[in-house]
Amino acid sequence: MKTILNVAKTFITDCVPADGVVADFTMGNGHDTLFLSRLVPQGKVYAFDIQPQALESTRALLEKNQAGENVQLICACHSRLDEFIDTPIDAGMFNLGYLPWSDKTVTTQSGTTLTAIRKAVALLKAGGSLVIMIYPGHPEGEKEGELIQSYAKGLDAKRFDATLYRIFNVPDCPYFVAIEKRK
Amino acid sequence: MKTILNVAKTFITDCVPADGVVADFTMGNGHDTLFLSRLVPQGKVYAFDIQPQALESTRALLEKNQAGENVQLICACHSRLDEFIDTPIDAGMFNLGYLPWSDKTVTTQSGTTLTAIRKAVALLKAGGSLVIMIYPGHPEGEKEGELIQSYAKGLDAKRFDATLYRIFNVPDCPYFVAIEKRK
Repeated sequence: MKTILNVAKTFITDCVPADGVVADFTMGNGHDTLFLSRLVPQGKVYAFDIQPQALESTRALLEKNQAGENVQLICACHSRLDEFIDTPIDAGMFNLGYLPWSDKTVTTQSGTTLTAIRKAVALLKAGGSLVIMIYPGHPEGEKEGELIQSYAKGLDAKRFDATLYRIFNVPDCPYFVAIEKRK
Repeated sequence: MKTILNVAKTFITDCVPADGVVADFTMGNGHDTLFLSRLVPQGKVYAFDIQPQALESTRALLEKNQAGENVQLICACHSRLDEFIDTPIDAGMFNLGYLPWSDKTVTTQSGTTLTAIRKAVALLKAGGSLVIMIYPGHPEGEKEGELIQSYAKGLDAKRFDATLYRIFNVPDCPYFVAIEKRK
């Protein structure tokens, strides 16, 4: 059986060169940040989270794995990404929901998430990809997913492919939307 | 950019051993039959089509590629698959629509397609997969797709994962449904 996050990551690995510029828009405990850091040994990773605890966990994880020299940890809402990234990006990841094992009242919020996705799409290089993991098992996640699908469905088919990958006989199962900018 | 058929095939290659039993339920010109024949060098491929022309094309393609000794070509509607396959299968492919470059009035039909899918699901081994490529660019294909999605959405989540993979900002773009039986 495929792991959904692993399938999602293939959209990133397919398009990112070793000197690529990438972003983890939802740092959490840093697992995706670490994955991205290893993917671009000659490149750059921007990683965002609104919670200082996420930066601490991620810094510890990177150090433990002797990685992270190419990573910039940013304590800010991802909807402000354009204040920190001033260059086109090869890829970006959103892994929505709450910081695992932490305060579940702090989840990503539909409004700021969608702002961040729009800004990230605007920064995508031709041939680049955004992957958005969605967790519909809680009410805010379900609403977020619907808004993201509605936004992605409206993307210009001449410039973007928006792919939905979903185990759709399991309503609560995490799924993803990938947005690829055509070359 | 990923090719949808190639992504679909990973659901087959992930679960089929070299001595596996597999089926091409929509032979057409035999490209999937050839793919399956090479996938199971010590196994068996059942290939179905209602049109004699499909069997001729497929036989020629297999011969040209020095493949096909493990293939049984069957000129019958795939809805009769249980008359020909008397063993559990590791995987099966449906690539719906009409025979390429041929009489476009002969397309797969929703009723018999759904019967065939139900029967194929019943034959799946634990850990096995069915992949169904759907072409919504013509009216019968759109209807077929909706029926298949409705059927797959109702599959028992304890026994099956039904995955939808669709470029959903391009309504006419081919997409697939994969049905995996849990181990």
